[in-house]
Amino acid sequence: MRATMMTTPLTVTPILRRAAKLFGDIEIVSRRPDKSLHRATYADFVAQSAQLAGALRKAGLQPGDRVATLMWNHVEHMAAYFGIPCAGGVLHTLNLRLHPDEIAYIANHAKDRFLLVDDCLLPLFAKFRAQVPFEKVIVVGNAPAGETSWAEFLATAPAGAEALAALPDLDENAPLGMCYTSGTTGKPKGVVYSHRSTVLHSMAVSMVDCLALSQRDTLLPVVPMFHANAWGIPYAAVMAGSKLVMPGPHLDPLSLLELMERERVTCAAGVPTIWAGILEQLEKQKRPLVPNCRMIVGGSAAPESMIRAFDALGLRVIHAWGMTETSPLGSVAHPRTTDTTTVDSAYAARARQGYPCPMIEIRAIGESGDEIAWDDHAQGELHVRGPWVAASYHERPDAGDRWTADGWFMTGDVVSISPTGSLRIVDRSKDVIKSGGEWISSVDLENALVAHPAVREAAVVAVPHPKWAERPLAVVVLKDGAAASADDLRTFLGEKFAKFQLPDAVVFVDAIPKTSTGKLLKSALRDRYADWKW
Amino acid sequence: MRATMMTTPLTVTPILRRAAKLFGDIEIVSRRPDKSLHRATYADFVAQSAQLAGALRKAGLQPGDRVATLMWNHVEHMAAYFGIPCAGGVLHTLNLRLHPDEIAYIANHAKDRFLLVDDCLLPLFAKFRAQVPFEKVIVVGNAPAGETSWAEFLATAPAGAEALAALPDLDENAPLGMCYTSGTTGKPKGVVYSHRSTVLHSMAVSMVDCLALSQRDTLLPVVPMFHANAWGIPYAAVMAGSKLVMPGPHLDPLSLLELMERERVTCAAGVPTIWAGILEQLEKQKRPLVPNCRMIVGGSAAPESMIRAFDALGLRVIHAWGMTETSPLGSVAHPRTTDTTTVDSAYAARARQGYPCPMIEIRAIGESGDEIAWDDHAQGELHVRGPWVAASYHERPDAGDRWTADGWFMTGDVVSISPTGSLRIVDRSKDVIKSGGEWISSVDLENALVAHPAVREAAVVAVPHPKWAERPLAVVVLKDGAAASADDLRTFLGEKFAKFQLPDAVVFVDAIPKTSTGKLLKSALRDRYADWKW
Repeated sequence: MRATMMTTPLTVTPILRRAAKLFGDIEIVSRRPDKSLHRATYADFVAQSAQLAGALRKAGLQPGDRVATLMWNHVEHMAAYFGIPCAGGVLHTLNLRLHPDEIAYIANHAKDRFLLVDDCLLPLFAKFRAQVPFEKVIVVGNAPAGETSWAEFLATAPAGAEALAALPDLDENAPLGMCYTSGTTGKPKGVVYSHRSTVLHSMAVSMVDCLALSQRDTLLPVVPMFHANAWGIPYAAVMAGSKLVMPGPHLDPLSLLELMERERVTCAAGVPTIWAGILEQLEKQKRPLVPNCRMIVGGSAAPESMIRAFDALGLRVIHAWGMTETSPLGSVAHPRTTDTTTVDSAYAARARQGYPCPMIEIRAIGESGDEIAWDDHAQGELHVRGPWVAASYHERPDAGDRWTADGWFMTGDVVSISPTGSLRIVDRSKDVIKSGGEWISSVDLENALVAHPAVREAAVVAVPHPKWAERPLAVVVLKDGAAASADDLRTFLGEKFAKFQLPDAVVFVDAIPKTSTGKLLKSALRDRYADWKW
Repeated sequence: MRATMMTTPLTVTPILRRAAKLFGDIEIVSRRPDKSLHRATYADFVAQSAQLAGALRKAGLQPGDRVATLMWNHVEHMAAYFGIPCAGGVLHTLNLRLHPDEIAYIANHAKDRFLLVDDCLLPLFAKFRAQVPFEKVIVVGNAPAGETSWAEFLATAPAGAEALAALPDLDENAPLGMCYTSGTTGKPKGVVYSHRSTVLHSMAVSMVDCLALSQRDTLLPVVPMFHANAWGIPYAAVMAGSKLVMPGPHLDPLSLLELMERERVTCAAGVPTIWAGILEQLEKQKRPLVPNCRMIVGGSAAPESMIRAFDALGLRVIHAWGMTETSPLGSVAHPRTTDTTTVDSAYAARARQGYPCPMIEIRAIGESGDEIAWDDHAQGELHVRGPWVAASYHERPDAGDRWTADGWFMTGDVVSISPTGSLRIVDRSKDVIKSGGEWISSVDLENALVAHPAVREAAVVAVPHPKWAERPLAVVVLKDGAAASADDLRTFLGEKFAKFQLPDAVVFVDAIPKTSTGKLLKSALRDRYADWKW
């Protein structure tokens, strides 16, 4: 017997077509480099997407060819997100925060043929242009003499309904886009998303117990579109028909706050560092923000103190976990009814990494090689599998050790799991501190430290120790005008941690080095303090 | 270039596996025939599902074999929904409201091998048992001597984690279940859902702008599990981990109200007839129902008057449209921000059939054969396509005329479409009244009639007329103790309709014949009044 259902391919093309018909009047607002606001509609965005697809094919784009973007978040980047894959090409978002040599390595490894670049990023592009043989470069914004502008390039192809109707039929397993992980060790590795994985991820992202995106939302992706697909928001937003507010290059707290208020943002998404700056600003101004706004926090763990502080301002933090290799959404910390019996238990539930998304399966493997018990105590490395999880890296047969023989992706995160399946990331496996046979979680210490009123940021790293193998060292940035001594902080931590877990030393610094995606760059700190004398 | 993502098959088996790990403590409450409440957990339900799968395979079930159910909504039916397809079988839900001969025809056409039947439905089964060569019959509840009980049958296979681990790997395009349409003309026709179509439908059902199902919901599917998969709620609920409340055979307003209050239902789903009875009861008792409950209404149009009346009681009606051929969810009437500029426009938006679900594409073809304009005025037959829409009927090559050459399903519904894509069903194409070259919508007249305080139910049908070809005749059931004359009703309608649209006659009756799924059986009325003398 055979099923009688349509086997419509899961590609983003029907999502674009549907948006054209249903959401033509919905706005996409983009902050330009000069801080002005550019207002477009979905009708404009769909027209640009379809015309870009036509222009790329006219310029010789073949199925599977890579088109790189070096751009901030704005409406033209949205058109690239759809226009490139709808033409059969592969959207390759270059991370503009990497070193120019690394960007060149990635563009060459991916064999990018074309580049779309923001005018304000031309100085960065100049630093690696000679290293990458792009066949064609298209400049968004003001194109200098001799360069092709976005408008000129689009004008090479038909516009309007004709362009949309001309989009090719695609296989759902065809590649759609790629991202390189900004790993702190080894060469960056690429993940190639398919149309199918992206459509399924978009549906999951929109579900109530995930990010709950709706047509009635106004979304502000602060997370850059070159960072793990801006967490899937661009595709999910067009599926839902949400209004989009794009911050461009202006990610400082005051610019973001102004945008959130002016455009009545209902849902913003970004890494904790961004929200910490906004929180400090709001506390300084002693005022709440826009009402009914939720803030999706991911990329690094959001400390419970931050969640509580935002609640006091009427903003609901939603804590999510994911990786470039998981498209990225893997889990979301919406408390279940059983998690909310007390105020403290509800906050504790929200500070975890939460429950795996529908269709995502999890397990954790302990040091013995067996699955750990889901008792919230045992620790092991998190493994995941599901329809939007990577099965390999692009052209890196040497990097196959991240997958088990039975088909799970090994995340490198050490977790414990509650009896009902809520994840808590104890540490990155390479960041955990191994002291005299005991494991100490650097993440727990960091989250506790930033709850101290004087602390803005903290990193805890393992430093070699003659007796204990490793001991924790805390690196702390104080808030402007605030004061705290090493002893103050150790006493503060002593309320929550056993004595052996406390950092033996605290170093005060002006800034902590970060990765290109805003995570603490602990490998740099480990190097810096490798010769520490206890 | 190839995508690097996992191509995890979209089957319901991982959904069951995930529910076992995450939602073991969540309840499934079932009303038994004796009105007692049976309480089980997801852990029980998953165990029964896996054991049923094992028992069916042990009994000789081969991939694609059909297993029929003749059951009300309860936890064992839930176990059948998962256990049968997870064993590789095909769940065939028999509609117990059909004539026994028709049930027999359907079971034979589907070639059902096994039957699961409720003890309270054995008298119905006795009426057609001789006509269908079921190889094995399993009785849920008290099995009479000589029959196999559910518990006995399950005990033939291993229980526990072993049963879950033994579930076979399945292809995502494998058949999962089937439903026959209860068409009012011709032999019933079967739709065979695949695992893939069901998983995608479940994800869509759960999305915010569809039914917004969540782990924090307590769901009451009043819609029977033999009626278009209970609108996909069983699968979507297990994906979300929602508490389920199952009414068994007790669908009277008082039983349902008691269940909704006792179990704190947050979301109930059923046809308008069910809600009309509940509304009458609540108005009689002059009290509101459980707070924060939403009611999903589908199967037939929900009149605006009903939506307003429930709002006054604090209950939010969500109007949805679908068909057996669309799994069934096709569209949902969540108003967009632009629909809610006035109270009246918001109600008008909610009384439409609403916006197509993500991944569902729509068009409407007018009498000329061209697509109609989306101007909310032009009318045409609704066509749909998408990954959970049927592409044919099971073994009915003669019934291929419901699909266009370019791959759209022709719904048989006459619609108009708003400029932003909101559907309004004007009529079934066979129910529209063609009077002197003009079309009159029977649905519009019916919705207006039930807004009259004395009217409980109304049907409007075309009756042959010597001069105008057809003219509308209204068939009306008054509320208990209420009075209204034909002239009263015509005057009432005259406020909203042109004179030529008003029914020429009104017939008062005690009851209107209905289809097995609660829809007005207008073909019977047309037959009854075919010789009407004007």
